[in-house]
Amino acid sequence: MKTPQEYIASLAAMKHNVWMNGQRVERPWEHPQIVPGINIVSLTYEWAQMPEYADMMTATSHLTGKTINRFTHIHQSADDLQKKVEMTRAYCRATGCIQRCMGIDSLNALSIITHHSDEMFETQYYPRLLEYIKYFQENDLVGNAAMTDVKGDRSLRPHQQADPDLYLHVVEKNDKGIVVRGAKAHNTMAPYAHELIVLPTREMKEEDADYAVAFAIPADAPGITMVCRGAAPSVKKETVAPVSSRYASVESLTIFDNVFVPWERVFMCGEWQLAGYLAEVFATYHRHSYCGCKPAITDILLGAAALVAEYNGIERASHVRGKLTELMTTAEIVHACGLAASLKGQRMTSGTYLPDLVYANVGKYYAGTNLHHEIELLQDLAGGLVVTLPSEEDINSPEIGAQLKKYLAGPASVAVDDRIRCFRLIEDMTASKFAGLLMVAGVHGGGSPEAERLAIYRSYDLETRKELAKKAAGIGM
Amino acid sequence: MKTPQEYIASLAAMKHNVWMNGQRVERPWEHPQIVPGINIVSLTYEWAQMPEYADMMTATSHLTGKTINRFTHIHQSADDLQKKVEMTRAYCRATGCIQRCMGIDSLNALSIITHHSDEMFETQYYPRLLEYIKYFQENDLVGNAAMTDVKGDRSLRPHQQADPDLYLHVVEKNDKGIVVRGAKAHNTMAPYAHELIVLPTREMKEEDADYAVAFAIPADAPGITMVCRGAAPSVKKETVAPVSSRYASVESLTIFDNVFVPWERVFMCGEWQLAGYLAEVFATYHRHSYCGCKPAITDILLGAAALVAEYNGIERASHVRGKLTELMTTAEIVHACGLAASLKGQRMTSGTYLPDLVYANVGKYYAGTNLHHEIELLQDLAGGLVVTLPSEEDINSPEIGAQLKKYLAGPASVAVDDRIRCFRLIEDMTASKFAGLLMVAGVHGGGSPEAERLAIYRSYDLETRKELAKKAAGIGM
Amino acid sequence: MKTPQEYIASLAAMKHNVWMNGQRVERPWEHPQIVPGINIVSLTYEWAQMPEYADMMTATSHLTGKTINRFTHIHQSADDLQKKVEMTRAYCRATGCIQRCMGIDSLNALSIITHHSDEMFETQYYPRLLEYIKYFQENDLVGNAAMTDVKGDRSLRPHQQADPDLYLHVVEKNDKGIVVRGAKAHNTMAPYAHELIVLPTREMKEEDADYAVAFAIPADAPGITMVCRGAAPSVKKETVAPVSSRYASVESLTIFDNVFVPWERVFMCGEWQLAGYLAEVFATYHRHSYCGCKPAITDILLGAAALVAEYNGIERASHVRGKLTELMTTAEIVHACGLAASLKGQRMTSGTYLPDLVYANVGKYYAGTNLHHEIELLQDLAGGLVVTLPSEEDINSPEIGAQLKKYLAGPASVAVDDRIRCFRLIEDMTASKFAGLLMVAGVHGGGSPEAERLAIYRSYDLETRKELAKKAAGIGM
Amino acid sequence: MKTPQEYIASLAAMKHNVWMNGQRVERPWEHPQIVPGINIVSLTYEWAQMPEYADMMTATSHLTGKTINRFTHIHQSADDLQKKVEMTRAYCRATGCIQRCMGIDSLNALSIITHHSDEMFETQYYPRLLEYIKYFQENDLVGNAAMTDVKGDRSLRPHQQADPDLYLHVVEKNDKGIVVRGAKAHNTMAPYAHELIVLPTREMKEEDADYAVAFAIPADAPGITMVCRGAAPSVKKETVAPVSSRYASVESLTIFDNVFVPWERVFMCGEWQLAGYLAEVFATYHRHSYCGCKPAITDILLGAAALVAEYNGIERASHVRGKLTELMTTAEIVHACGLAASLKGQRMTSGTYLPDLVYANVGKYYAGTNLHHEIELLQDLAGGLVVTLPSEEDINSPEIGAQLKKYLAGPASVAVDDRIRCFRLIEDMTASKFAGLLMVAGVHGGGSPEAERLAIYRSYDLETRKELAKKAAGIGM
Repeated sequence: MKTPQEYIASLAAMKHNVWMNGQRVERPWEHPQIVPGINIVSLTYEWAQMPEYADMMTATSHLTGKTINRFTHIHQSADDLQKKVEMTRAYCRATGCIQRCMGIDSLNALSIITHHSDEMFETQYYPRLLEYIKYFQENDLVGNAAMTDVKGDRSLRPHQQADPDLYLHVVEKNDKGIVVRGAKAHNTMAPYAHELIVLPTREMKEEDADYAVAFAIPADAPGITMVCRGAAPSVKKETVAPVSSRYASVESLTIFDNVFVPWERVFMCGEWQLAGYLAEVFATYHRHSYCGCKPAITDILLGAAALVAEYNGIERASHVRGKLTELMTTAEIVHACGLAASLKGQRMTSGTYLPDLVYANVGKYYAGTNLHHEIELLQDLAGGLVVTLPSEEDINSPEIGAQLKKYLAGPASVAVDDRIRCFRLIEDMTASKFAGLLMVAGVHGGGSPEAERLAIYRSYDLETRKELAKKAAGIGM
Repeated sequence: MKTPQEYIASLAAMKHNVWMNGQRVERPWEHPQIVPGINIVSLTYEWAQMPEYADMMTATSHLTGKTINRFTHIHQSADDLQKKVEMTRAYCRATGCIQRCMGIDSLNALSIITHHSDEMFETQYYPRLLEYIKYFQENDLVGNAAMTDVKGDRSLRPHQQADPDLYLHVVEKNDKGIVVRGAKAHNTMAPYAHELIVLPTREMKEEDADYAVAFAIPADAPGITMVCRGAAPSVKKETVAPVSSRYASVESLTIFDNVFVPWERVFMCGEWQLAGYLAEVFATYHRHSYCGCKPAITDILLGAAALVAEYNGIERASHVRGKLTELMTTAEIVHACGLAASLKGQRMTSGTYLPDLVYANVGKYYAGTNLHHEIELLQDLAGGLVVTLPSEEDINSPEIGAQLKKYLAGPASVAVDDRIRCFRLIEDMTASKFAGLLMVAGVHGGGSPEAERLAIYRSYDLETRKELAKKAAGIGM
Repeated sequence: MKTPQEYIASLAAMKHNVWMNGQRVERPWEHPQIVPGINIVSLTYEWAQMPEYADMMTATSHLTGKTINRFTHIHQSADDLQKKVEMTRAYCRATGCIQRCMGIDSLNALSIITHHSDEMFETQYYPRLLEYIKYFQENDLVGNAAMTDVKGDRSLRPHQQADPDLYLHVVEKNDKGIVVRGAKAHNTMAPYAHELIVLPTREMKEEDADYAVAFAIPADAPGITMVCRGAAPSVKKETVAPVSSRYASVESLTIFDNVFVPWERVFMCGEWQLAGYLAEVFATYHRHSYCGCKPAITDILLGAAALVAEYNGIERASHVRGKLTELMTTAEIVHACGLAASLKGQRMTSGTYLPDLVYANVGKYYAGTNLHHEIELLQDLAGGLVVTLPSEEDINSPEIGAQLKKYLAGPASVAVDDRIRCFRLIEDMTASKFAGLLMVAGVHGGGSPEAERLAIYRSYDLETRKELAKKAAGIGM
Repeated sequence: MKTPQEYIASLAAMKHNVWMNGQRVERPWEHPQIVPGINIVSLTYEWAQMPEYADMMTATSHLTGKTINRFTHIHQSADDLQKKVEMTRAYCRATGCIQRCMGIDSLNALSIITHHSDEMFETQYYPRLLEYIKYFQENDLVGNAAMTDVKGDRSLRPHQQADPDLYLHVVEKNDKGIVVRGAKAHNTMAPYAHELIVLPTREMKEEDADYAVAFAIPADAPGITMVCRGAAPSVKKETVAPVSSRYASVESLTIFDNVFVPWERVFMCGEWQLAGYLAEVFATYHRHSYCGCKPAITDILLGAAALVAEYNGIERASHVRGKLTELMTTAEIVHACGLAASLKGQRMTSGTYLPDLVYANVGKYYAGTNLHHEIELLQDLAGGLVVTLPSEEDINSPEIGAQLKKYLAGPASVAVDDRIRCFRLIEDMTASKFAGLLMVAGVHGGGSPEAERLAIYRSYDLETRKELAKKAAGIGM
């Protein structure tokens, strides 16, 4: 397993094609908007080295028997799934979003679908993938999942778009490999990942066969351009809350302009019948991950809510306890779904364990449709200062700073600086660009609420319930 | 293990002191309002004999090594807890409420608290309880949990009430045993249980010591009077839905008028410090049970919703699918909490496994505060006929029946009789006295939503979250 | 204006064709299930005579200048609309549902559409209708709105049904009038109304022209059969709450078997283009009425909630106040919509005022999707006794009654009989067949939530909002 | 009435004591963070000059008979109240928040309480206030309401705070006037208002008498320091949405350091009995204003939602229409409460009309507890691009801009630039500092949800409802 230092060194060794704010970023591993993302991923290398976390953060490769970072592991049991969701919550309590989940969620999904494909179509994807996974594990790599196409007119299928490139597709095949063109959106972490793992974004029909393509590619391969934006505050300040200034993600719109992919890295190419299944299985893994990260965000919001209530002197009020209890309930509903999805995980034909689809979807759906209310509760408990607190410069001003601190005092037992820091945290978490990202990622990360509802409806065993009702009604007896 | 027939025979052998509608019920095991309850409990004897259910419905006694009905088992592992919650869902899919859960929830709670009491106070309750449990297992008994006192003025503690009997209490102690007086409310199943297991209903202060009492007593012991009401439809009709006419519960207000309890059946007597803990532990077990039964009720409501949509010809409408998905989501959130509470169950000092308190409470709380909305969804999909469907006599009338059936037709593919039965089921489940019981039991069974919120708030590890927030805010660093 | 006695006498003078429980009801005005409905309607004759209510309960006919019952008035101003909604709340605070609203809602709707029809198609419906309204006002009649067809397969249009009678339609026209066949469902109040006012239930296409029919017909006309069910408790008891034993509605499935309607009572016949508009305008009036009656039901639920909290000794608890406030908020949101719909009411071409469609729909929608939650709140505050309170016979039993009353005591200051009555009321209002009707009528009365959402979406001025957004975004500037 | 130009000139004539980002702002009327606020207020001068808006935006002074800006008017009728709430919606549709409401809400509240005070205590505040109002109307002034104290430990009353200045209070009285010290928070618009109107923030006890103080003071009076922050984007960009770059508010923490107020501008001084009443009456007016502005914000969010759905090609999907309908419903519930509060407004002893307290509170409460969900709906419909859209510089880059525009295309009929602008608007409105302000102002503006719930509970006529329930239950009959 790599150390954080080795990870950063490996990034520095990459060619990079990263743009931000109209300029090519020459040294992305040092850019102030990208460093917070690298800090996050570094943590996954750091904690994996710590003996007290060994059981949770590492695993034994089923391919090589070696100890590997759990973020490179193919889940072999329900217990593996449980550890993944608990590891995710642990990391995200420190960082808000650990990001590295998406790579391993992709590889697990591919391990199921390639095996299935080989059975159905006599393709050779599964052994090829295993080779790739070994390489991935041994080099302790960071993989980005590049899934969501830009999609153009969403009422049209891929091949129906005015511009055929609005979904990424194969434009050429030869005996060395394939050439692809298109763009993938919302690629969190892309500028500091080693690999892009490209998956189809939806089910396909036969006419869309060229769009049914999955592969892995080094993130600095020729033809790839990343246009990025960061979520960290643009100016570094003393009292800015660490959670957003030290740990924040970067989003990329990634353009694939005639990118060549050798066959040994191609895991789907034309098997349109399995494109939707692959998308769904990846989504299931990723929604399972959200059952770890979203409760972690609630953990922080809840802690901030309890803290600000104390700093405002209202912690004993009945409505305050009620609101804290709502936050607790939300966190644990989501996490319970993650645990249930693990416990009810199923062994697929390749041996990989897949979380229960219904529970994984229910958990992410509940998280995504309750986050805004959680933010409302925190803002409710905090009060207007969240958005009216004077700037750091004013508070530090030799002329007006003392007056400001006089008037920003809470209960006598609370240091005014702590109170100010607490409000800065809540501003960052609920009333900033960072908060905007948090909210939108809560709704759309891993798929939209409608996608989750559809997945639940489609996979639920409704017929059994209709039979129960018939029996209860005395129909057909 | 007893057969259903042996169970019914054992009821017939009991002295009974059951009142209903102003009259003493001479043969409760034949009373039309009580038979539906007996039908339910009989099922727990029947399925336990079926090989295909053996793993779920039976267990191995940790005391005797014998195969026992799981409803008499003291949970020895997280897996036992999971099986209990899954068994509960399975039974309740057929019956709505299996009822026998409460006895075993009481005994498990006592197995924890008596052990604790012996450690704290050098009492001898735990070995005494083990003897009782052996007896309970060997005779495959049905135990009712008599917990909720009538409570008088709820703003006053037990010893402060105008009438000291408004909470059940010890009025005499002698070397043979104790004498108790008071009344317990909402005792589902009491008239067809063998044993009443009496528990304190709340935490106590020192002045309430006489009220800190727990014991088991045969349901037909001298001094016990049960005043009952049934939930089954008062008149048996052909098309009444089986779920309420064949399976329905009976509620008892049980009066203890100077009832003598021998010491070998007394499990708490004056240890006021543990009264609240016992109440909480029982509640945790019982809320865990609700994570099985409430999803089962949703299973039936969901099935009925899907069925009536089909019988109305609207099953493909987008809003219909959306509403079905809401029902699915609700069921699985609750069940996920039950599974998570099992998985995270803890071994207590006596060896008994206790479900995770937070998950058990969150599950019951979510169930209890969403059931009315589920009923709303079902009524929404069904339409006004739920409450305007003409009576069975009208539909069967030789003069107007044919006309009615003409106009009660749905899609041509649906038999009109099936459609009528489906509406009867929905009427029973959502618009009847039976439905009223369902709703109130959903809210208050196992404790009120406020009690659950309080339990969550009190047992949640809030300090850890505050530390996370401090770290995120840079406080104290 | 009639007196209550004259109203009852007029019912006795009618031929009746009312069935209930498989039997023809010979004297419906004396049937214990129908009397509670008659009691309600009688109130509208009684209060209209009371000077203190004159301004609210009566109006001046715009046709004759005479003082008339407001339930026979065609609204001539926004103030008329406001009085109608406030009158409805006043009556329903005493009765739960005043029922007589539907007749006048129908006539107001017809006064708009017939005028429109005459303009569009040179028909002569409007003057014909005015004659009928004069007759209606002068005889102070009670009109039932017979609107909802039985509908068969709801995915099919009227003319597509397997049985053409599943929507009421014209089967013959001659120079005297028309002959119709079909059935109308959910006809509250039909067996004690003088007139049935028949309206189409939905928009129609040209092929459905025979189904586009509206008319008024005496409720005892040849060929009409009503199959009824009542919502009152089946057995009259002393402590049964007056609200359901004295005041309850009756629902009818009304069969029209080749019923002849003379031309002077026909108000639409074949103008399929206006069928949907008529249905919508009636629905708007009726949803406006719900903005009066639903807050009245909440008034009673809220009062019961406050009372039971007091009778349980918990009225000062913070969560109790919170729940009462939720009920207050719900009532006033709905009523505010009724007031706003009145204030923004529009004068139509006939001079009739129509409530604002959006506000009327929003109000009814909010009411219908919150009632179940209101019931949940009341049950939450009341506790399990709502469904476990022993029967009246037990409480009055000379043998066990005294013991029961001892244990049913609340705070010392509350008479136990009052506490028992309070629980009976809550049982009636939330956990009985009557409650079932309340809930389903809340959801479906005046149209389903989906119908209301569709009405809001269709009539809302969305383009203006898109323009605002474009301006805010700088699009097209 | 002033023109916009005169307004700006009048600001330039003021001494200013405005700080931002650690620096004194020399020319606040030109500061890029303050100009957007001035733009908003200028609109109130501009539209008042437009004949088509005359009826809504101007009024006739009841003191002088002259035509005045409605933002300086004391409401003399229910119709005045209705026009105020409709004017507020009209202005806020363009600006999001019109800000000038708070001054006139303060003066109306003072017109009621000073009259009341003179009656109770024989003070002379009311005639003094009328003089001030004449001056305010004739000079067409902008008044800021400085109400919320910084409050320190919220569990303590004003006089109990560790630092007595944590609530603003009188530190000296002499024959010329009074001297006050303290600070007021969340003073939107203060740096571009002419006058600060200072009100107490809560009810007081006798020991708090020095804190029961209300007055008006020029915003540039000696001793006043404003520490401000703006909500506009920090960098002006081409495609930034006008709504936030052209129209945005400024918040001030305003310090009163021994500020002298002459008696003719003092409207409460020591009448602690009326402090809470004044706070409540101001809050009622201001919550009534929110019933205009919050629907306007929903108008914009709804427009953006409809637009982005179209630009994504999903406008015909059933769930999309459902979400748009939810937004419509929310807007109109709030506005209906504003209209109902107007219609049911009451004439107070001074002749001033006060909106109905319950409706005003219900409206604001509903708005404040639904805004986050509205934002969720909009983000749901828009998708991830809200937070991952590349920067303006990237899109305009000669090197990568063309590629980006290729991939940011929506349906072929939509100009890609319009689609980009639309996403920028949604980013501004939902995922930015500006959005943070919107959300927090939605929750806390005019008082917190808990304050509103308390106001509803306290002022609701609960006894009448208890009587209804008693009657329905047959209690006391």
